[in-house]
Amino acid sequence: MICRAVARGRTAGIRLGIGDDAAVLRVPQGHEILVTTDFSLEGVHFRREWHPAASVGHRCLARGLSDIAAMGGEPRAAFLSLALPAGLPQRWVDEFVRGLLALAKKYGVTLAGGDTAQSPARVLADIVVVGSAPKGKAITRAGARPGDVLYVTGELGGSAAALDELYRGRKISAKKFARHFHPEPRVAVGCFLRERGWATAMIDLSDGLSTDLHHICEESGVGAEVLAEAIPSHHAASLEQALNGGEDYELLFTTRPGRKVPQKIAGVPVTRIGKIARSGVFLTRNGERENLAPGGWEHFRR
Amino acid sequence: MICRAVARGRTAGIRLGIGDDAAVLRVPQGHEILVTTDFSLEGVHFRREWHPAASVGHRCLARGLSDIAAMGGEPRAAFLSLALPAGLPQRWVDEFVRGLLALAKKYGVTLAGGDTAQSPARVLADIVVVGSAPKGKAITRAGARPGDVLYVTGELGGSAAALDELYRGRKISAKKFARHFHPEPRVAVGCFLRERGWATAMIDLSDGLSTDLHHICEESGVGAEVLAEAIPSHHAASLEQALNGGEDYELLFTTRPGRKVPQKIAGVPVTRIGKIARSGVFLTRNGERENLAPGGWEHFRR
Repeated sequence: MICRAVARGRTAGIRLGIGDDAAVLRVPQGHEILVTTDFSLEGVHFRREWHPAASVGHRCLARGLSDIAAMGGEPRAAFLSLALPAGLPQRWVDEFVRGLLALAKKYGVTLAGGDTAQSPARVLADIVVVGSAPKGKAITRAGARPGDVLYVTGELGGSAAALDELYRGRKISAKKFARHFHPEPRVAVGCFLRERGWATAMIDLSDGLSTDLHHICEESGVGAEVLAEAIPSHHAASLEQALNGGEDYELLFTTRPGRKVPQKIAGVPVTRIGKIARSGVFLTRNGERENLAPGGWEHFRR
Repeated sequence: MICRAVARGRTAGIRLGIGDDAAVLRVPQGHEILVTTDFSLEGVHFRREWHPAASVGHRCLARGLSDIAAMGGEPRAAFLSLALPAGLPQRWVDEFVRGLLALAKKYGVTLAGGDTAQSPARVLADIVVVGSAPKGKAITRAGARPGDVLYVTGELGGSAAALDELYRGRKISAKKFARHFHPEPRVAVGCFLRERGWATAMIDLSDGLSTDLHHICEESGVGAEVLAEAIPSHHAASLEQALNGGEDYELLFTTRPGRKVPQKIAGVPVTRIGKIARSGVFLTRNGERENLAPGGWEHFRR
């Protein structure tokens, strides 16, 4: 089980950790709060034979932090609900918690509560991340306008490329595929864009570029055009993987046409990959324009 | 008597619901936020053959609302993570959501987000409830002092009595055992006590009186004495069930000795059952004093 002491090391914003009916969080004056919740289910989001426990813990929290980053928010506290099968080695749990807490510490997030239960068979985790942003300043998916420019952070397809290797039964290097095993949520980039007021719409790439771009287009009531050659692919990834692979946890955002965006923000490369149009979502590849359908990322496509 | 914020049918506080990376919640000025998270796992917290889907949805949210009530908080928003097995009838899901939303509406809580996934076999739900309370006013488990008086709301043991009947394979009436199938979180009582500043410590009875009393004693660094004859038992419950049965979701709280507490708060009976002592947790029954050990409620004691 999770040690109570784990949550006792608390930062100033948290009044109560694990050990009361609810955690009490202070909210900075003039801020509103952001809440996101994400499952990490064995057999759906990870496999114990593929993912070291510390990576599972890291990825579990990274999913939530990335959602806060996509709003331009500052993450504050995390809550972990964890159901474990009876026979699970304590060492697995310790490593899971270690991976999760290492990432939490890096982003100044306190594990402030949660729930534990016995699971019939598989490991089930649900992470809640609470963040905040100045009132009215959180960046939604709904602000893109025709003519806006489309940017993406980092490289795409690395996580999908790693999964494909794992499916083929190959041993792969956690270092080469760090984006899969230890994705880095783009919190600093999100905050930077929110502070400057540059991003008109933003989303994190959890389902894959093609699908998440459709989410922005739907919420903003616009279309988009992407240039295939401009997409920054992971060196091991195909264009297909960069377009449709999920779990890269990069940020996809739009700016007004005149905005000068630097090539790096908070040390992370930022690449212009297209623009917002009136309607339809298109990919131009080798000079040919085609429809870009949502690639339908499905976890462990069974 | 109903707490002001509870009575106000609220949706104004939620800026974004399901459909962005995170929900954005406004926090009333001068409030801090309360966060609680609770699993509802098939086979652990409920069984599909025993509990109608609407009851499972109701109980799922009630667990979280009760935690907020135990802090004297005002519930604001809920987030539901739900993993469903492939073959589950849509009707079950519809009924589950209907039961959950009916309770949410009653308490002015918005379902503001969540996550969904496919489950390998059983229904897995995790509910997050976010509430708020004026800064520094949330009622913790830690404020009881020797001499304080111990009170409990409602009747105890009804939920355990229902479970025992179910274990014996008996059909039972959902009306007779409403406390099991449709527990009512004591939100208005919690708010009343917080507004008046009467409760020195409070907890909700999810694990059973004996266990939850120990939680208050541990966090407050005190002991307690309970009078068996004073415990308000459900008409179908034994003393054993009233002492050790879980999931009644009543409130257990303490007040300073001089405080006059009415027999009902917000329409709910309030009963004096004992007092806080320096150390030890004791039960006096037929004039004999014995140790009261934590009764160790375990869900579906397998």
